[in-house]
Amino acid sequence: MLDSGEITREALVALQAKVEAGDSAGILESIGQLHPADITNLLYDFDGESSKFVISLLPYDVGAEIITNLDPDTRKKFLKQYSSDEFVVFIPLMDSDDAADILNEQPVRFREEVLARLTDREMANYLIELLRYEEDCAGGLMAKELIKANINWTVVRTIEEIRRQAENVEKIYSVYVVDDEDILLGRVSLKKIIITKGQTLISDIFEPEIVFIESYRDQNEVAEIMQRYDLESVPVVNVQGKLLGRITIDDVVDVITEQAEEDINLMSGISETVEEDESVWLSAKSRLPWLLIGMVGGLLGAKFAGLFEWQIRLLPAMAFFIPLITATGGNVGIQASTVMIQSLGNRSYNSLSFMQKLGKTVLIALVNGSVISLTVLFLTIVLGEDPHLASTVAAAIFSVTVLASVMGTITPFVLHRYDVNPAIASGPFITTANDLLGLAVYFGVAYLML
Amino acid sequence: MLDSGEITREALVALQAKVEAGDSAGILESIGQLHPADITNLLYDFDGESSKFVISLLPYDVGAEIITNLDPDTRKKFLKQYSSDEFVVFIPLMDSDDAADILNEQPVRFREEVLARLTDREMANYLIELLRYEEDCAGGLMAKELIKANINWTVVRTIEEIRRQAENVEKIYSVYVVDDEDILLGRVSLKKIIITKGQTLISDIFEPEIVFIESYRDQNEVAEIMQRYDLESVPVVNVQGKLLGRITIDDVVDVITEQAEEDINLMSGISETVEEDESVWLSAKSRLPWLLIGMVGGLLGAKFAGLFEWQIRLLPAMAFFIPLITATGGNVGIQASTVMIQSLGNRSYNSLSFMQKLGKTVLIALVNGSVISLTVLFLTIVLGEDPHLASTVAAAIFSVTVLASVMGTITPFVLHRYDVNPAIASGPFITTANDLLGLAVYFGVAYLML
Repeated sequence: MLDSGEITREALVALQAKVEAGDSAGILESIGQLHPADITNLLYDFDGESSKFVISLLPYDVGAEIITNLDPDTRKKFLKQYSSDEFVVFIPLMDSDDAADILNEQPVRFREEVLARLTDREMANYLIELLRYEEDCAGGLMAKELIKANINWTVVRTIEEIRRQAENVEKIYSVYVVDDEDILLGRVSLKKIIITKGQTLISDIFEPEIVFIESYRDQNEVAEIMQRYDLESVPVVNVQGKLLGRITIDDVVDVITEQAEEDINLMSGISETVEEDESVWLSAKSRLPWLLIGMVGGLLGAKFAGLFEWQIRLLPAMAFFIPLITATGGNVGIQASTVMIQSLGNRSYNSLSFMQKLGKTVLIALVNGSVISLTVLFLTIVLGEDPHLASTVAAAIFSVTVLASVMGTITPFVLHRYDVNPAIASGPFITTANDLLGLAVYFGVAYLML
Repeated sequence: MLDSGEITREALVALQAKVEAGDSAGILESIGQLHPADITNLLYDFDGESSKFVISLLPYDVGAEIITNLDPDTRKKFLKQYSSDEFVVFIPLMDSDDAADILNEQPVRFREEVLARLTDREMANYLIELLRYEEDCAGGLMAKELIKANINWTVVRTIEEIRRQAENVEKIYSVYVVDDEDILLGRVSLKKIIITKGQTLISDIFEPEIVFIESYRDQNEVAEIMQRYDLESVPVVNVQGKLLGRITIDDVVDVITEQAEEDINLMSGISETVEEDESVWLSAKSRLPWLLIGMVGGLLGAKFAGLFEWQIRLLPAMAFFIPLITATGGNVGIQASTVMIQSLGNRSYNSLSFMQKLGKTVLIALVNGSVISLTVLFLTIVLGEDPHLASTVAAAIFSVTVLASVMGTITPFVLHRYDVNPAIASGPFITTANDLLGLAVYFGVAYLML
């Protein structure tokens, strides 16, 4: 049995030596028993040429699985090592959804050559169909391989069909039931087929209540539906209800992971997910927009503070506390907006109305604002600051905490209303806005109190 | 067939009226055909008493599924409506992992009463075993229901066993193969069983190479392994290799979602995930620690800036640009740390070494630092600022961009080394540190240039 552990560093170094020496037998001895996913991980430490050499020693199906497992950017570069002739042997051994994704990453010419050289014409037709769909819709996620049974068949006939098709379908979750026009009518589980007598008709045992999804639906909708109904696979239909393919849970796990990554990037002011080995220029470009927005905010803040130059002339120490005020506003605002964003993302579960949430936010802000401002008051006086200035700073912190919380709660709500991903509101946007808010409050309070 | 759409607002209002009127027939007409997951969503809009009434009208198995689907905090409150006598009927209709999780949420007395009243003693034993495990380890995620076959059985004997056990096991992915001591030896797929002759021995068709997991492993490890090997279910064994249960992919989807939520909270300076209907005090407490750390940082900054009071006396306009400098440092630092955190989380794929990553970060910072500082230089001069001050601000922004990028790259790396979740580094921590850095750079540059 396979252990699910990691490869040790020593084993890796030993393997690298064997690869450099071209020791085919030694390499197979080291990795022949490994799971393809583990071989994939190993190959990240080899260059393209060595990886191709290692894959050439392995059975085609293992090679196909390794290529499928590679991350898209590495794969795109790696496959430049292959001619379309060398590569085409792997395609029939992949699931159609993976093969279509991989071909989609390739230059048009390579893609067309591979499709033309494919002797498995059924696979070629599958791929040509799948390449038509946008990558981020249900059609782009689905695989064509599935087991379907006509509603009028018997269990025996269905088992024969499974036997015939089983080679192409790696994991069978359900047998889909269709009519003569391929319209999806329901499903029957493998369990049911196993425990039912052979002459029973599928129409007598199938479940007509199944969840399906239209090919044009967005991938996030697919993920949401599969999570909500705890599905391990979902059939995809066209607008006429004709069965086109199926989406399995492993593809959806990838969608969920990507979505979380995208949200985190938005929260950090990175406008696009850029792989770490992409060019410096692309990475810089993905980070620049929010930095510029922050900069404009900062300049506006400077202009605004300029109106209060006389206050700073009177009491230069006032300036020292500016970062404290703006940072507190930023931290409080990000906390409030993150909580609101998560509550918006949680479509199924909203026990509080928006006004209740806002009310609760204000209460939390009153508690935390009191704690922080009293602590600041105490510490600044202990540090020997003028008590007048200390109370001004404390009052400003209290006000900023409350106002920034309110803004952090309202902003994601408004963005969500206008169909903008609210995660944007937890990033530099809210920080910049809160810096301005902080300055306004600070100078306002100072004007009133000093 | 079920459509995967949402319930309309009107339908909900109509249903609420029926519930208030106690119109059982009308309620069943409205929701009898819905998927239990959709009924669960509807119930979030009802109070506990009404929900209990609706569930009492539905078959026990649908009720069990609804209760399983509820989010844990809502469920905990909702189940206070039930006596242990009323509740125990649902337990045998749940998967053992879900039943154990639900019992774990209940007061000890309620839990013990339910276990005592359970007439299904096999289920009771399952639950008593599962309740022993920590919630966040493999043992806490697994269900006891699975289909296993002795390696010496024939396919026919195995099919009989499936028929016998099938009622308890909702989804069968694999049949696990064990020896007489229940030691896990491998698996055989349902597909294989269907397409193999009845007298064939399991020992001739089973796959010995399977991935398994020990019961003490952490849930994140389980998620990582199931994702890496694209598994829909994984068997759990004890240290002797004895088969204890299985974990299915739907539980792991929940783990992944929770992990992402936790990271986002850490990035926002929220130390614990608090449900939105928890008390104000709990929510406030989860947000306070980072706010206080930010406050201490701000006070240190004020103390530090105080050393340069003479500069501000000379040129009060200098103070206006403090928020611009600190905000830019914060934004740049968060971007760099987020990219680094994601690269650390991506265990399998690290094409660049740490030094290469750091080098790339610096190059990106040089590009973006130049763009921002030149823009600031241009705009401040256009806005009529003193060219000396304008160039000081621009030089400070450039330096801060580079330094904050370096710090944002190093901090998560160091935290990760010491087994601290590096997501912490993308939050108020980096902002606070960068505020101090920004102030130091600004006053340093000003000292040199003005």
